[in-house]
Amino acid sequence: MTRPHRIDGLQYANWSEKIFRQMREGGVDAVHVTIAYHETFRETVLNMEQWNRWFERFPELIVQGRTGADVRRARAEGRTAIIFGFQNPSPIEDDIGLVEILHTLGARFMQLTYNNQSLLATGCYEAEDPGLTRMGREVIAEMNRVGLVIDMSHSAERSTLETIEASTRPIAITHANPHSWHPALRNKSDTVIRALAEAGGMLGFSLYPHHLKGGTDCTLASFCEAMARTAEMVGAEHLGIGSDLCQDQPDSIVEWMRTGRWTKGVDFGEGSADAPGFPPMPDWFGDNRDFGTIETGLRDAGFSAEDVAGIMGENWLRFFDEGFGAS
Amino acid sequence: MTRPHRIDGLQYANWSEKIFRQMREGGVDAVHVTIAYHETFRETVLNMEQWNRWFERFPELIVQGRTGADVRRARAEGRTAIIFGFQNPSPIEDDIGLVEILHTLGARFMQLTYNNQSLLATGCYEAEDPGLTRMGREVIAEMNRVGLVIDMSHSAERSTLETIEASTRPIAITHANPHSWHPALRNKSDTVIRALAEAGGMLGFSLYPHHLKGGTDCTLASFCEAMARTAEMVGAEHLGIGSDLCQDQPDSIVEWMRTGRWTKGVDFGEGSADAPGFPPMPDWFGDNRDFGTIETGLRDAGFSAEDVAGIMGENWLRFFDEGFGAS
Repeated sequence: MTRPHRIDGLQYANWSEKIFRQMREGGVDAVHVTIAYHETFRETVLNMEQWNRWFERFPELIVQGRTGADVRRARAEGRTAIIFGFQNPSPIEDDIGLVEILHTLGARFMQLTYNNQSLLATGCYEAEDPGLTRMGREVIAEMNRVGLVIDMSHSAERSTLETIEASTRPIAITHANPHSWHPALRNKSDTVIRALAEAGGMLGFSLYPHHLKGGTDCTLASFCEAMARTAEMVGAEHLGIGSDLCQDQPDSIVEWMRTGRWTKGVDFGEGSADAPGFPPMPDWFGDNRDFGTIETGLRDAGFSAEDVAGIMGENWLRFFDEGFGAS
Repeated sequence: MTRPHRIDGLQYANWSEKIFRQMREGGVDAVHVTIAYHETFRETVLNMEQWNRWFERFPELIVQGRTGADVRRARAEGRTAIIFGFQNPSPIEDDIGLVEILHTLGARFMQLTYNNQSLLATGCYEAEDPGLTRMGREVIAEMNRVGLVIDMSHSAERSTLETIEASTRPIAITHANPHSWHPALRNKSDTVIRALAEAGGMLGFSLYPHHLKGGTDCTLASFCEAMARTAEMVGAEHLGIGSDLCQDQPDSIVEWMRTGRWTKGVDFGEGSADAPGFPPMPDWFGDNRDFGTIETGLRDAGFSAEDVAGIMGENWLRFFDEGFGAS
């Protein structure tokens, strides 16, 4: 039998040949990579230029992915498809025309907010969530039109529910866990998870320690049990992995992720003054070579072979097929 | 017999539904349109956004063209393929990585210079022509790699000859005429035309009055005779039309074309203080509906049916097939 596809719904590593080789060792067929946190349009294009250099330098390991078909082709060629995404709408600045331009350049996911209020919607760390803005509703329609998937991983509850309602196409929460399992501000309520799934959306389970029950000490069994409970609630076909792997990043990067240029002060985000840096990953998931461990964990949690295949990648692949083209 | 393709190698009109409809009336299957004269990268992207709005608004008339196959498809669907190009390397600024980014966004032609010295090469109005710069040689290699065609319409002699030599792929002079027919600074020597053709390149004959013998009063017979003499010299398969049609543009636009932001003064370019604006077009070529007139003129000048088909579009189509993909 053919091995099912293995797809990661989000990573933000300090990219290197070493990591690209680990993707191949781990049999990872596609990764949605973050190429902007707070970057302007021009800065985002510079990040794309850096990826173009990697594609040119390591053609035997990686290739840009724009469609589900690209992921299948990458797999057949023994490469990993790299799919661009933004954790913030900063790349479109105040210009809705940049949605199509960035989609043409390969962007396939964009979060409407990153923790804070944006021009479009509200982030999960704001005290108030007034919901979608005027521009937010316009940008959702444009993203739906061109096939740029809406990602609400870092968004607040009302904004997320209004987005699911306003979007004519399924959306994604690429990297977050159920709040009922671990009540972090970044994790999602059952209300959101149900609405997401009812609208055909996808939830990528995160392995970032601050999103895990017990943090770094979270066990594989507990993680897979949380997936099993969520599958009972909404069906396994809406679940995937979005590891949020930030491999080899220096702590200066988590500072950039949290504070960008919006404050002169310090914001610890999900960290704290005592532990301001990246938290250590659980010992059972350190890099791209460890996806097989999760697969084993899912089987041990009682998932069928079909459900395991879906969660490890086939569900994301179906979602890419449906979400990445023009409407 | 199927009508041969009709392709215009350059236009810079004041685009409107009226002009798009005239393209259809004239049976024009593809047009290379200028989307930057002196624009920065961001300004060029804004121009692409404007085109995206037109593609969205007039899908029954126009469609973006990126390949020869797109031109054939446009024709089968009764639309005109619009192919983006720049008359100056200003859109890449000082960043070679923007060559690939802009190619991904659909750019298929880029001039290395527009009249003046650029970061890459020398324009035809400079007193001295020191030839290709260090960055010029790097950018030529990158354009060759990604399939962005080099256009030397506004370049000086030595820079043009060195570019033909340095480029591993055929280049184009999309809109200019033989200097031996009409000795304008913008027209090309027989040395350049021979070198261009020997390297597999294309010369698009211009209908801009300053490039024509007799200017606005140039006759169709004289124009076609110039093409016939050039075909005798290098072969009709290297010739096409590049009308340089600037339909409906106000004179403020020819000022922008000539002076951009490089001078606070006035530069009349090919015009003069007495006639600073756009010159009137010859009465036999006023807009896109008049390509049939040129076709008749070519037949009357003694060209074979095959050569007429080549000059009116099939030669450009073959060149697009060979030039627009990655090497």
